[in-house]
Amino acid sequence: MIKAIYAGSFDPVTLGHLDIIKRASKISDKLVVAVLENPNKNCLFTIEERKKHLEIVTADIENVEVATFKGLFADFAREINANVAIRGLRNAVDFAYEQQIQLINGRLNDNIETIFLSADEKHISLSSSAVKEVAVFGGNIDFMVPSEIVGFIEEKYMKRGV
Amino acid sequence: MIKAIYAGSFDPVTLGHLDIIKRASKISDKLVVAVLENPNKNCLFTIEERKKHLEIVTADIENVEVATFKGLFADFAREINANVAIRGLRNAVDFAYEQQIQLINGRLNDNIETIFLSADEKHISLSSSAVKEVAVFGGNIDFMVPSEIVGFIEEKYMKRGV
Amino acid sequence: MIKAIYAGSFDPVTLGHLDIIKRASKISDKLVVAVLENPNKNCLFTIEERKKHLEIVTADIENVEVATFKGLFADFAREINANVAIRGLRNAVDFAYEQQIQLINGRLNDNIETIFLSADEKHISLSSSAVKEVAVFGGNIDFMVPSEIVGFIEEKYMKRGV
Amino acid sequence: MIKAIYAGSFDPVTLGHLDIIKRASKISDKLVVAVLENPNKNCLFTIEERKKHLEIVTADIENVEVATFKGLFADFAREINANVAIRGLRNAVDFAYEQQIQLINGRLNDNIETIFLSADEKHISLSSSAVKEVAVFGGNIDFMVPSEIVGFIEEKYMKRGV
Amino acid sequence: MIKAIYAGSFDPVTLGHLDIIKRASKISDKLVVAVLENPNKNCLFTIEERKKHLEIVTADIENVEVATFKGLFADFAREINANVAIRGLRNAVDFAYEQQIQLINGRLNDNIETIFLSADEKHISLSSSAVKEVAVFGGNIDFMVPSEIVGFIEEKYMKRGV
Amino acid sequence: MIKAIYAGSFDPVTLGHLDIIKRASKISDKLVVAVLENPNKNCLFTIEERKKHLEIVTADIENVEVATFKGLFADFAREINANVAIRGLRNAVDFAYEQQIQLINGRLNDNIETIFLSADEKHISLSSSAVKEVAVFGGNIDFMVPSEIVGFIEEKYMKRGV
Repeated sequence: MIKAIYAGSFDPVTLGHLDIIKRASKISDKLVVAVLENPNKNCLFTIEERKKHLEIVTADIENVEVATFKGLFADFAREINANVAIRGLRNAVDFAYEQQIQLINGRLNDNIETIFLSADEKHISLSSSAVKEVAVFGGNIDFMVPSEIVGFIEEKYMKRGV
Repeated sequence: MIKAIYAGSFDPVTLGHLDIIKRASKISDKLVVAVLENPNKNCLFTIEERKKHLEIVTADIENVEVATFKGLFADFAREINANVAIRGLRNAVDFAYEQQIQLINGRLNDNIETIFLSADEKHISLSSSAVKEVAVFGGNIDFMVPSEIVGFIEEKYMKRGV
Repeated sequence: MIKAIYAGSFDPVTLGHLDIIKRASKISDKLVVAVLENPNKNCLFTIEERKKHLEIVTADIENVEVATFKGLFADFAREINANVAIRGLRNAVDFAYEQQIQLINGRLNDNIETIFLSADEKHISLSSSAVKEVAVFGGNIDFMVPSEIVGFIEEKYMKRGV
Repeated sequence: MIKAIYAGSFDPVTLGHLDIIKRASKISDKLVVAVLENPNKNCLFTIEERKKHLEIVTADIENVEVATFKGLFADFAREINANVAIRGLRNAVDFAYEQQIQLINGRLNDNIETIFLSADEKHISLSSSAVKEVAVFGGNIDFMVPSEIVGFIEEKYMKRGV
Repeated sequence: MIKAIYAGSFDPVTLGHLDIIKRASKISDKLVVAVLENPNKNCLFTIEERKKHLEIVTADIENVEVATFKGLFADFAREINANVAIRGLRNAVDFAYEQQIQLINGRLNDNIETIFLSADEKHISLSSSAVKEVAVFGGNIDFMVPSEIVGFIEEKYMKRGV
Repeated sequence: MIKAIYAGSFDPVTLGHLDIIKRASKISDKLVVAVLENPNKNCLFTIEERKKHLEIVTADIENVEVATFKGLFADFAREINANVAIRGLRNAVDFAYEQQIQLINGRLNDNIETIFLSADEKHISLSSSAVKEVAVFGGNIDFMVPSEIVGFIEEKYMKRGV
């Protein structure tokens, strides 16, 4: 039985994230999408908002659950008895970084196997940072984030009066 | 249910391959290790020998089966109703190559999800080619291939009188 | 005035090549698609066939002309008074290779500027080799090559009795 | 007709930037060097200073014009009717990053074609950050920036009393 | 005679750093491990603490000396008459970055030759940042830093009340 | 005492090789430039010719000796009591390959430390293959190989009647 975790900041969730979630859900019995609460990182959305967004866009995927966590990924995985970590890869530079993360997580929790899914061609350019860099200037983000999320992002920047 | 295929030439199987097989077997219900029969490639071992080697080294892994195939990976996967392809990654250059394979396989068979496992630190330098380049000159290959296979390789080079 | 050359083996031309040709034609006054005749390379199609294929798929692009050449790219560029070389890039590994080619071409012909176009997302997995590896086993190549070319490739492999 | 934009922070302009400008000017009818005004980035030089520096070093290139812009590159390109974006590449890691930028810009403005020029061998180590890291300690920057700019940089650090 | 410098922030020293120090000491007559004092970087340990840690872990390597420096590496190397810079490489992305550093250092001090040592397999995932990201949450860092240093790190985070 | 080996095919020696030899000779007490005799590789020059070329271009470097070897590099290093292997790196893709070689050599001979030198900017595009690809068509190779070697290469291709 595979209980997988797909962890990240999801600030905001992109179509690339959603694609990885859908594909990972098919190879897992249970998939926990885990939003990292990082007090040192300045996020656009609160952790509750990010959790809500993920719940909205994954509402129709049966075996997906959204959670939040603080601290080490390896500890959270142990706590919820997960045995697989899901990570997305967009290009060769991503891999060099992810390989280090995976090796450290493997040392901290040897029950965790990391599975990499390569981004679909349509999503190799997407990242949460890119979404924000475009949205702050009112650019079109329809091709970057799930349609249900577009409004939340636009509203956030309007409130900021940017 | 996950029926995974880990395909390759395995000429010969290395400790890196075996590590991927063991890890992949834990995240699959059934894992088929599939030896590619490529008439255009000049192999050290026949396809029957390579199959036998894999059967020996995977004998104690319950859900692993060894098979051989000709032709397109995507067709073989369809034929045996597999839904996951397993691929190992050693470094960033591997990824650039594997990303192309994965995208093409995905177009040829949209029931196949490719899962990448990153090589363990101990195995990032291993490849079947490296084994042969060392063995041809009688170098020590104990750290590169499963102990059961060492003798087969040495015997092959002795027969060749190299 | 920009007279550009897009050179390659085009054995066969792919949708990735055609996309680069279309985009390059828009930033050139004249674009010469140049098929390399390499006696040491074993090609599926003769140089005349490859030239014909390119003429078919570029028939409706006004400022494109198809040519063949032997020898050094730098010499051919000088001979036809071209001032720009077009190269496609699919990933970071491509770039490492292409950077070397460009620096050498620049030394051999300092009137040539090399322009890199990054492959469209849809084409980052395509290559002439991949087309042949799929076609040899009768796999679907519709997503890889222009529709006018599919028949020529299938016919070639049927004749070979593969 | 090619109206190209070469955008960046140019804080300060380097010999690598100037080389790209010279080469891009030869393949464009009009080249706009566009200085990005980014209120969130802490720059050494004001946007007016950076614009002045670029005007000084490009004074003798006829078809080059220096401009400043705020907001999205894709919007600025639309506004001035540009059809080409120029980007420099120094190494394979640069490419992985630039490919993402290009794909997003192409989605936001489909009249823009991105052209990559590979840095000359002499400039593959240069960046505005490197200039500042050397200059802050009074190191020699003559091989990094145009001679007309050296004094402006030295003066800036003297004023700061570093 | 080789007088080498291995410079860095060492905040904190890792097992990867220590491995490079040991290997570099064997190919040098004298090896100076040089701790960079960077007033703009927010370090966990003071420069005196980092110097002390390095002295502890290198105590039994005869030809190693620990020093601190401010300003440009190239100037410090000149000042102490060093002729070799030692740099560690973990992966291909590291190299792209280090190549730029080396070329600039070579221009600023042409008596310095940069020698790259590739990280041992066991250490390709280690970095000072990774140590801190794990330690801040009380994770096990025994496989990341020399045993003598573990206590200093834990103490630091306890004091901070993290 | 450092006894280093710089091994390769040197078919032919390039200016990039010569630069590495000069720099390596300064950090070694003794440097052995070792020409690999590989019966399976089709070389332009015989092993005696390649040895002679290296002797000519290194004639004025006192501590350099040219040798030839067959078989494993690790064995040859043991045989001549060398303790350092020298390898050149041109770009990030080179590193991924060289890291594997180094790890295997280190397992086969744990007295060997591999030292990487990064190619000078002027030589990042050079390789023996590139020299031959240009020379076969009579292109200018003056910027690629030592001047003493140019004639040998031209003569070889004339004899072949290419």
